[in-house]
Order: sequence, then C-alpha cells, then structure tokens
Amino acid sequence: MEKKAWVAIPGGVTAALGFRAHGIASGVKKKGGLDLALVASDQPASAAAVFTTNKVVAAPVVVSREHVADGTARAVILNSGNANACLGEAGLKAARLMAASAGQALGLRESDVLVASTGVIGAAFPVEKIVAAIPQLVAGLSPAGGGTAAQAIMTTDTVAKEFAVELTINGQPVRIGGMAKGSGMIQPNMATMLAVVTTDAAILPGLLRQALTAATSVSFNRITVDGDTSTNDSLFVLANGASGVKIEEPGVAYELFQAALTHVCTELAKMIVRDGEGATKLVTIKVTGARDEGQAEQAGRAVANSNLVKTAFFGEDANWGRILAAVGYSGIDFAPEQIRIALGDLPVFTDGSGLPFDEERAAKILAEPEITVHIDLGQGTAEATLWTCDLSYEYVKINGSYRT
Amino acid sequence: MEKKAWVAIPGGVTAALGFRAHGIASGVKKKGGLDLALVASDQPASAAAVFTTNKVVAAPVVVSREHVADGTARAVILNSGNANACLGEAGLKAARLMAASAGQALGLRESDVLVASTGVIGAAFPVEKIVAAIPQLVAGLSPAGGGTAAQAIMTTDTVAKEFAVELTINGQPVRIGGMAKGSGMIQPNMATMLAVVTTDAAILPGLLRQALTAATSVSFNRITVDGDTSTNDSLFVLANGASGVKIEEPGVAYELFQAALTHVCTELAKMIVRDGEGATKLVTIKVTGARDEGQAEQAGRAVANSNLVKTAFFGEDANWGRILAAVGYSGIDFAPEQIRIALGDLPVFTDGSGLPFDEERAAKILAEPEITVHIDLGQGTAEATLWTCDLSYEYVKINGSYRT
Repeated sequence: MEKKAWVAIPGGVTAALGFRAHGIASGVKKKGGLDLALVASDQPASAAAVFTTNKVVAAPVVVSREHVADGTARAVILNSGNANACLGEAGLKAARLMAASAGQALGLRESDVLVASTGVIGAAFPVEKIVAAIPQLVAGLSPAGGGTAAQAIMTTDTVAKEFAVELTINGQPVRIGGMAKGSGMIQPNMATMLAVVTTDAAILPGLLRQALTAATSVSFNRITVDGDTSTNDSLFVLANGASGVKIEEPGVAYELFQAALTHVCTELAKMIVRDGEGATKLVTIKVTGARDEGQAEQAGRAVANSNLVKTAFFGEDANWGRILAAVGYSGIDFAPEQIRIALGDLPVFTDGSGLPFDEERAAKILAEPEITVHIDLGQGTAEATLWTCDLSYEYVKINGSYRT
Repeated sequence: MEKKAWVAIPGGVTAALGFRAHGIASGVKKKGGLDLALVASDQPASAAAVFTTNKVVAAPVVVSREHVADGTARAVILNSGNANACLGEAGLKAARLMAASAGQALGLRESDVLVASTGVIGAAFPVEKIVAAIPQLVAGLSPAGGGTAAQAIMTTDTVAKEFAVELTINGQPVRIGGMAKGSGMIQPNMATMLAVVTTDAAILPGLLRQALTAATSVSFNRITVDGDTSTNDSLFVLANGASGVKIEEPGVAYELFQAALTHVCTELAKMIVRDGEGATKLVTIKVTGARDEGQAEQAGRAVANSNLVKTAFFGEDANWGRILAAVGYSGIDFAPEQIRIALGDLPVFTDGSGLPFDEERAAKILAEPEITVHIDLGQGTAEATLWTCDLSYEYVKINGSYRT
C-alpha cells in the first residue's frame, strides 16, 4: 500500500514548487502555432536524462548530453516544428546558441540549460527566430505556465500531455509532474518523444539518475506506435528541493519517490500511445509466465510492433493467429502448446489450438477504446507490460504527407 | 556474360518438361474461387525446400519437412483460404491426409507429396472438402496447367505470379520455372509466401539444396511487405531431369543453373513485393559501401521495414531524414558523416547533412511505380539489395478486416 501513497494533482511541469514555465509561437512552425517552450527552476537542481538509442542523433541531444553530464541543470528549452537533425556543424552551433541565449536571459550558464527539438529532420533550422523570441518567452515564465509549455512541444499530437502527483515523504508533501509529446516514431528505447519531469524533492544526482533509469525501463521504453526510433528523443528530470524534502540514500524515501516517478512516467507514456498517430485504441500487451522479464518484453514487443496485429485491432478483428505468429517470430524460445492468449478476459487460445469463443463477446471487447491482450508463456513467473495502438488509415495519411 | 545466358519464356511451374499442374475450386474459400493446386512430376525428382523461421509453424510445414528430408518428391499440393495453422493434432492429421490422398490418386507414396496451405490462421481446416476434390484435381493435370495452379494459391494477391527461363547447359536446353503467392506477412526469412519452382535439369539433392539456399538468401529473404513473418512460408523446388541434362558436381554447369535459379527466385520475389497488400510502388533499397554483406543487409532491412519510410513513399515525399533515422536504429556501426543517400540518381544527403535538391525532379522520381533508394555506407565494398513496397490506406483496409 505504502508504495502507492500518491494522489494525482492537476498540472504538469509546474505542479512542483519552484518551477516556472511558458510556451509561445516563435515562428518555427509555418502555421503559427505554439512552438517554443521553457521550463526553469528558481533554484539549482539535480538533473538526469535519457536519450535516443539511434546512432543518428540530433544536435540538441549532443548538447544536452554535455550539459547534463555534471548532474545539474536549471532550465530546459524545447521547440517543435523542426528537429534540428542532420544539419552538421550548423545544427550543433544552433543548438548551443539556443541554450546560451536562454541561459543569458535567465542569468544562467549555457551549461545549466538543456535543449530539445522535435519536428521535420534535415530542414534548415531557423535559430534566429528562436533567439529573437527568447526575451518574450522568459518574460512570460510563470508557476501556472506548464500548460502552454506542454502545448508548445506538440507536433502531430492532438492533445497536450501533462500529469502530476503529490506524495508524502517523511511526513512532508512532495510533487512530481511532467509533460510529454509523441506521437509517431515511437518505439521502445526512447522513440520520438520529448518529456520533461520536475520535482520539488531534493535528490542527489546519482540517485536521480538511478530512479529515472528504473522508471524509464518500464514506462517510456515499453511503448510503441510504429517501431521507428527517432533521432531526437529526450527525457529530462529536474529535482530542485523546493519542498524541503531530501533524499540522500537508498531506503524507504527513495523507494517511495521512485515508485511515484515511475507512475508519472507510465501515465505520460500511455498518453503518448493513446494519442499515437491515427490511433483509435490503446492496446495493453501483458505478457506473463515468462522465464525472465527480458523474455516477456521481447515477446510483447514483437506483438506490439506487428502491423498485422495493429491493423486487426483497428478492424476490431479477434485475429489471435496474428498475435501467436508475432510471438513465434519474436525470437524467444517457447512451445506453442505452452501458450495461453486472452483478449480482455476472453480466452481464445490454449493447449496449442484456438478455443471456440463467443464472437459477440469478442466484438464487444474489441470495440472498447482500451483493450488488454494477455499472453501467458507458461514457462515461469516473470512478466512485462507493453503499450501500443492500432494502425489506422489516419496513420498512413499523417505520415504520407508530413514533410510537405 | 555466360552467367546471364538465360532467356525468359512464358509459363511457370509447367514451363519445364515433364511437369503437369492444375488448380480448382474445392470450396475452402467461402466465395468459391480457385483454392486447390497440384504440381506433379511425371518421373522421380530431386527436391529441396526452405521453410518459415517462425517458431509457430503450421501443420503442412511439419509434414513437408518430413517428406522432403530424403531429398526427393514427386508432387506438391497447395491450398489457399485456410492456413491449417494452430489447430494442434487435428491440423497435423489433416495435412497428412491431404498428402496421402493426393499420393493415392497419383500412385505415389504419401512421403513423395509435399503440402502447403495459406490463409486464415486458427480456423477449422475443411480437409474433407480437399479430399473430395482431389480426383477432379488430378484428372485436370496438364502440361498447360501452371496458370490455374498459380491462381489457386492466391489469397489477397491481385495477380497470379509466374516466371520461367530457359538456359543452355552443356549445349542442351534446360528450363526453370515457378509460381508464388504473397502478399501480406512478407518479411525477410521467408514470410507468408508459398512458392514452387520446377526444373527439367537433373541435379543431385545435395547440390539442389545448396543452390536453393544460395538463391533464397538474395531473393525471397530480401523482401518485406510488413515485417511480419508467417507460420506457413514454404518454398519448394523439384528437379526431374526430363531435359536429359545432368548436374552432378560443382562447376560451370552448376554455376549456370544456380544463377538462373536465383534469377527466377528474384523475379518471383519482386512480383510478391510489387503486389504487396495495398502497395502502389516497388521500392528497391540498394546498400553499398558496407564492410560486409551482413552489415549492408541489416541497414537495408531497417529501412525496408520502416513504416515511416514506407508511408513517405506512399505520399511521394522525399523524406530522406526517415531513411537516415532507420539506418541509425538498424544496429549497424557507422558515422552519419560517412553516409550518402540518393533517391534514384538524385543525391539528397552527404557529408553529414542534406543537399539542396530540385523538388520537382524529386517529385518526378517519386511518382514512378518503381523507385530505387541508394544508401552508401562509405565503409567498404560489400553490398546488398532489398525490395519493399509503400504503406497505403489499402494495406490498413485489407488487414483490418481479413478474418471476418
């Protein structure tokens, strides 16, 4: 029970004390939407980050990696509309300038500012528009500004994504909140997503990094929209200690913090999948009965990434054969006779063959906006949960004409 | 020159001497289309086969593996409309009965008959309809029957797929011809595809197996439609010696045969991609400048399987950033600065950044039904070619309602 001792509260990156944020339209997006966001801490903060595993990394990832290396940061500046990727030296210079300009306006060193970009790859990056807009951006910073910041990082997202919780550590309230954007190029190992999480707990950089790694492995790294991994993925967490609560060693306080951080990351990750490009359904793939967690994850990932499974969910078709086939090519070791598959609470496959099932009941389960597929490998007690979405006409439409 | 000493000739599995075939409607397909095919050799033949790498294998794959183990076979019976997969013992019994019944009608042992099925997974297999139809099927066998056989193995295929060549070995004509079906669940390592290739050369089973493995590795194993690997993939080759030409050892004759077999397999494989579910374009991914062929293939496969790349081709969008990003997450070791990318003959990326290019010329290249993407890794001299198709609304439509 104690581990779930948090309650959801309104807001995102400014739900925690001592953080201000703002989002504006700088002109990077051709159509004039909000495209530039800033999150800043009023006091020094521990910082940790996770980045894309793609070998091709965008310039802001290179710069942020350098800036977060010392375990501290005070601000994050993010833009949408242009990924600042594959632009060589010019891109790197632009990312540094973005951090330096924000730092100057905030009275911080360049290295205290983290930077992220999302949007089209390879198009010239209009850094001059961003630099020109920074004074206005900083002037607008407010403890109520988390919402505009969350809007300003959206690309093909249809809704802004924010989530926050309050928990009690050592008898005192602590807040953890965040914002994220998807919504295509999402696949395990940090696909095109940006997220910023803030907390008013004080926590040593090494512990913060450890908590973030643990949280990411079962949240952002367990989602997939289309199996593509982006060049820009970045997840930042800043902990500024404004609550007065200090976490200085592993123990009960740390465990509480980590569980709540994992919950915030999981909720943000599920929001990304729910809003996946063209998605009409959130599909939870729960793999149980595995020999180890890695095996469960490997099987679940193949199912979550299968275009045939995803189109079947779009079509509300109880096609368990495609689920089984995906487990079959996932690379895990198993015998089909050991596997059991259920859609929601409806068993459809066991003992090596399909079960006769009520098509009407299946249709009802598949018509829901959220569906759980349960796959039991029958080999052990380990498990893993992944989240994916269906593959619709709209995904094709959005991605057939993204650049132009 | 000598290695390309073949000419295309009309026909498919009956282009070679001493083979007869036929295709009929047995009632497995609900709508009454052709769904049962038989290919038979008039005399004993060497045989080799390649099967799906999926851990979940359909019953006919189990049975055919047993029957081809001795390196000989005289006939192949294939049905569409039902995959005979995931049906436990009942499925296995049905597949054996299918082979035994065809064998009986042809005066052959059950073990001389190979068997294959394609269609929906997990639905009860109506073997009684097939058994009842076999006399009619055998009665219709003819040296002109390759076409109806090719039609009878189609599922969501929109065209029957046949290809044949004639070449000269030791001064005598030899024919190699085949048929294949796609068209979803296609991915390297033998995805949902069935193919039968016949030749009137005589070739020892061991050499035939070797030639088939070499041919498959650069043809059927280099195509992808949606990255899903089926439970039923089977590729069979029968060599009956009716031409009088014998290939008994490695050497010039074997090399000629293998090159022509590779060509037949490559043409059939490309037909599958061109007719991929919903495909409007055949996209050739040519990776050069690799350290070894494996590296080239790994990079090309990631690009060929990327939904974002495939939707961009559907949208005729010169989005080289997605191509580069896919190479980035392919797992190969490389530096973005070393890579060059061209669409057709139009260079779009070099020295770590995009090149300014003529959008009109790009649009013209992307409007073609066949497009080549050239990726040079800049590391060595090895190369690999893969074939994929675009991802369209129609793919989603076909697969959103396949089972029902």
